[in-house]
Amino acid sequence: MVGMARWEPNARERLVRAAVDLFAEQGYDATTVNEIAERAGGLTKTTFFRHFADKREVLFAGQELHSRVLAEAIAAAPESASPLEAVGAAVFALTDTFTEDRREMGRQLLVVIGKSAELQERAAYKRSVLADAMDGALRERGVAEPAASVAADLGVRAFGGAFARWTGSADGRALAEFAGEELARLRGAITELGWHRESAGALDGAGDAGTAD
Amino acid sequence: MVGMARWEPNARERLVRAAVDLFAEQGYDATTVNEIAERAGGLTKTTFFRHFADKREVLFAGQELHSRVLAEAIAAAPESASPLEAVGAAVFALTDTFTEDRREMGRQLLVVIGKSAELQERAAYKRSVLADAMDGALRERGVAEPAASVAADLGVRAFGGAFARWTGSADGRALAEFAGEELARLRGAITELGWHRESAGALDGAGDAGTAD
Repeated sequence: MVGMARWEPNARERLVRAAVDLFAEQGYDATTVNEIAERAGGLTKTTFFRHFADKREVLFAGQELHSRVLAEAIAAAPESASPLEAVGAAVFALTDTFTEDRREMGRQLLVVIGKSAELQERAAYKRSVLADAMDGALRERGVAEPAASVAADLGVRAFGGAFARWTGSADGRALAEFAGEELARLRGAITELGWHRESAGALDGAGDAGTAD
Repeated sequence: MVGMARWEPNARERLVRAAVDLFAEQGYDATTVNEIAERAGGLTKTTFFRHFADKREVLFAGQELHSRVLAEAIAAAPESASPLEAVGAAVFALTDTFTEDRREMGRQLLVVIGKSAELQERAAYKRSVLADAMDGALRERGVAEPAASVAADLGVRAFGGAFARWTGSADGRALAEFAGEELARLRGAITELGWHRESAGALDGAGDAGTAD
């Protein structure tokens, strides 16, 4: 494996960048694995398949790493941290892995995904995998369901919202800064939704009506 | 089309039931469209493809209808309804479409999906489509983001949790009853998560630290 690395340095990263470039230029469906390998500096199809199951998976290569980063940050949060604090720490741990040179690729990636139903499905699945990773890590900390799931969903929303804004901006602000804003807005939203809870008896009424017979 | 309906009554519903049966019996990958059509009472492949794009879509045939039911219920909720009350009304409108005779098929469906990565992806996408439908309907009512998205996520969680419990139970309780319980638990969870907000300044601190340079 050391020998392989000497011949194909950063093959994985080069393949990801080549794939995003080609998908953006000529479309996802029209691009072949051969073209991606070639664009990545004369790599081969065999090298491509050593790294990825298919051309779709190139775009979601970070799923496993991102899940691990999120789960580990939640596990490492101080015992005193609230569920949302732990999720916030996880989101910031993930944003830290996105340096400024990833911004333009991220922008292209969102455009490519936005044009393909197949990729939108895959992106939805990635979000659910990231949520499950945080959910599991929160439960390990003793957070009960459904609070753990809800907090995990908020983390996914915070990262997704921050990523979309970061890639769409050109002001040089870091991804973490957008994430801090998204987390604050989401905290405000759950407070706002919770405020209405005194009147929420109407909901239970509807539930009873639906099962009265 | 009236003529077609006379020849193939309830073809769509029969195809769905046949597909779920076969997937449960012999596996999703091993089942062909021909077998599904045959099991559905001697229908043809042509009839199958008149109703569904492929064998995967049979399992998610309800996506469009369910999105519409959710969105319309939110639109029809009283002006005074809070976002969570509107989402609760939507969840109950959806549970009302699931009669007792769907319970066993629902149970099989969850088992089949649980065994296939491809189907889990598709299911995640369906959840995101349902959430988007509620999100859009809430924004139409003037609910701001991200409260609309968060409330929509809670609705998806409530329905999904209720559906899993309903299909796993044998006590004859209606899906709506489980949904009422899930909605109450989720309301409790956001209240609990919100309680910690006074100490949430630590999050903003982490955000600042992440962008200090």
